[in-house]
Amino acid sequence: MAKQERAVRTRNALIESAAELFSRDGYEVVSLAAISARAGVSNGALHFHFPSKAALAAAVRGAAAERFDRIVSAERPPPQLGGSLQALVDTSHALLLSLRQDLVLRAGFSLDGVAEDAGRGVSLHERWHAWVEDIVARCAREQLLSDVAPRDLVATVVGATVGFAELGGRDVRWLSRITLTRFWSLLLPRIATAPTQRRVVATGRPAEVV
Amino acid sequence: MAKQERAVRTRNALIESAAELFSRDGYEVVSLAAISARAGVSNGALHFHFPSKAALAAAVRGAAAERFDRIVSAERPPPQLGGSLQALVDTSHALLLSLRQDLVLRAGFSLDGVAEDAGRGVSLHERWHAWVEDIVARCAREQLLSDVAPRDLVATVVGATVGFAELGGRDVRWLSRITLTRFWSLLLPRIATAPTQRRVVATGRPAEVV
Repeated sequence: MAKQERAVRTRNALIESAAELFSRDGYEVVSLAAISARAGVSNGALHFHFPSKAALAAAVRGAAAERFDRIVSAERPPPQLGGSLQALVDTSHALLLSLRQDLVLRAGFSLDGVAEDAGRGVSLHERWHAWVEDIVARCAREQLLSDVAPRDLVATVVGATVGFAELGGRDVRWLSRITLTRFWSLLLPRIATAPTQRRVVATGRPAEVV
Repeated sequence: MAKQERAVRTRNALIESAAELFSRDGYEVVSLAAISARAGVSNGALHFHFPSKAALAAAVRGAAAERFDRIVSAERPPPQLGGSLQALVDTSHALLLSLRQDLVLRAGFSLDGVAEDAGRGVSLHERWHAWVEDIVARCAREQLLSDVAPRDLVATVVGATVGFAELGGRDVRWLSRITLTRFWSLLLPRIATAPTQRRVVATGRPAEVV
């Protein structure tokens, strides 16, 4: 294995270990020694890559932001397959599924609350909020009923998804596809025009079902 | 001031200080010395009341549970004023308002995630879930539309309220009456029968408005 490749692997292993320990024990309590031990690398190697715990937290946040970007930039279905509203449903499913499986993404969201790391750009919570706002604005013309205020829908979707993620930290059933499908099954008849309702699938499109 | 009264005051001051520091800095990081300093009492006095940080956490949880019980046991409006569905709307407003103002209640919810304190009875998140389940079951007959599955409604209400509370920890606007009113304004036309919709106020009844 080339030296550079080994360095990349070590760096990634440190990010994974840090994410796991930050999620499990909380950022403040975790020591750099615990992270290097968990990653199976020396303290020296850790300090070569990351001069401080804050630097490691920033790397976890960066990696989480990349994964978040991949989730929200998935291809959107054409109008006859539900268009932007289906994209919102699919993406919310993909986000909660990833939060269940991906410790780096989960740690990225939980680091939003850490003061030491505050003020370093936009938090994942804020990015999720902004993305939902944008996609709801794209839905608004033909897909949503005229008496649905877009900001009411945005607040409801962001609140419920963040709540399911938070509850899922203690009981993983809240992060199941079933829970989010309950939410969308309740909501879609309230928000979507009749033709859109016939097209949009509350469970997410098959490609998204895992 | 009688000796006993002074002891009660000291105990309460310690609970308030612990709640404030647990909420701000996280349970794991806060030291007993910081809590006693914040409460303006000696370390000796702290140890007289609480032998350990876990004992103090248990007292915070107990105090939070009492406040939670007061919120959910408020008098319910008669059917002509919205009955059980209005009680659900009012109580969700009262809970989020209290989370904004009451550090002990907020700390009680945040301690649900603390491992050391796990397995000590039902968490506040679970109690809130159970309470919502119960009141939705009471609504179900005349107030809710027949195509609304009670468990879909329960998941949506618990998810959204927990999400608003979580988001409110970083940005207090999520805990405002406006945000929760957006949620109920969107949801009520989907879930309530026509006569119930005319009676239920999404902002909460005047007595609850602060």
